[in-house]
Amino acid sequence: MDITAVNALPYEEFVNIFGNVVEKCPIIPAAVWTRRPFVSLNALETAIMEFIDALPESGKEGILRCHPDLAGRDLQIGTLTRESREEQTGAGMDALSPKEALRMAHLNEEYKKRFDFPFVICARMNDKANILQQLSERCQNPRAVERTRGVEEVKKICRLRLQGLVLTDPLNKL
Amino acid sequence: MDITAVNALPYEEFVNIFGNVVEKCPIIPAAVWTRRPFVSLNALETAIMEFIDALPESGKEGILRCHPDLAGRDLQIGTLTRESREEQTGAGMDALSPKEALRMAHLNEEYKKRFDFPFVICARMNDKANILQQLSERCQNPRAVERTRGVEEVKKICRLRLQGLVLTDPLNKL
Repeated sequence: MDITAVNALPYEEFVNIFGNVVEKCPIIPAAVWTRRPFVSLNALETAIMEFIDALPESGKEGILRCHPDLAGRDLQIGTLTRESREEQTGAGMDALSPKEALRMAHLNEEYKKRFDFPFVICARMNDKANILQQLSERCQNPRAVERTRGVEEVKKICRLRLQGLVLTDPLNKL
Repeated sequence: MDITAVNALPYEEFVNIFGNVVEKCPIIPAAVWTRRPFVSLNALETAIMEFIDALPESGKEGILRCHPDLAGRDLQIGTLTRESREEQTGAGMDALSPKEALRMAHLNEEYKKRFDFPFVICARMNDKANILQQLSERCQNPRAVERTRGVEEVKKICRLRLQGLVLTDPLNKL
């Protein structure tokens, strides 16, 4: 689908297709639909980022709290969204050793206890070892730093999900 | 569950329980969790209403666009949220005559074509005849009036969903 096809979508189809580009936040694409037509995928992405940036801090924390733990309960019992499942399994979150799994669980709990939102990282841009290391390091950050960092990761995840849905190669528009 | 129990919930359980008090917008309860402890159900409700009111107009339209049609495709194919299904069936949306169903479908399309968001009404406060009449009448309103009206209905729906989850009788707190 190219951006011309995106712009031609009725809101219902748009929300169906883009509803999870920010995890469990269909309100975000549903809101930016108002700003179509988009001149490019980049313009659609920018509209989403601007909507997120304009939210109050509580709203940004709300976005983070809509995210599942990495290698957490939702992965174990099969209740992840399709996008999260693919991203987590791609990063090896379903193939942790017992020792890694225990460490991940402990660090997730520590992180959530400290910040009141989950550790969010773009799994497709990291591997298992890197995720564990960053989780451990980021547990030490101040809360405001982690809120900002978490939202940056949400945007990276969103960007990759969008690129999976809309053609970006200019050749495809010819 | 009384408000003391609500205040004791970790964010994950809070979002699980209250995630659909605004249809498909878990970001909203996930955001207002930041404002706990709530002195009463009313305070929780107020926090949600204030979060909605503070959204830009596009965000309010986004909330409306997360709502299903009344007696629409999601009801027919079984993809409504539990809350919506109970509310729609309670108002007789699954028991329309062929003539009523046709009229509802036509008016829903007319409404969406005119406003670019769906007709939202608190089904639990209306019956079949009333819903059809209001849908027909509201199709004639200016867009800004309908956006405001739709959000008012979202709040009524939210209030009733909250009351179904949290005890309101002060006697229960003794």
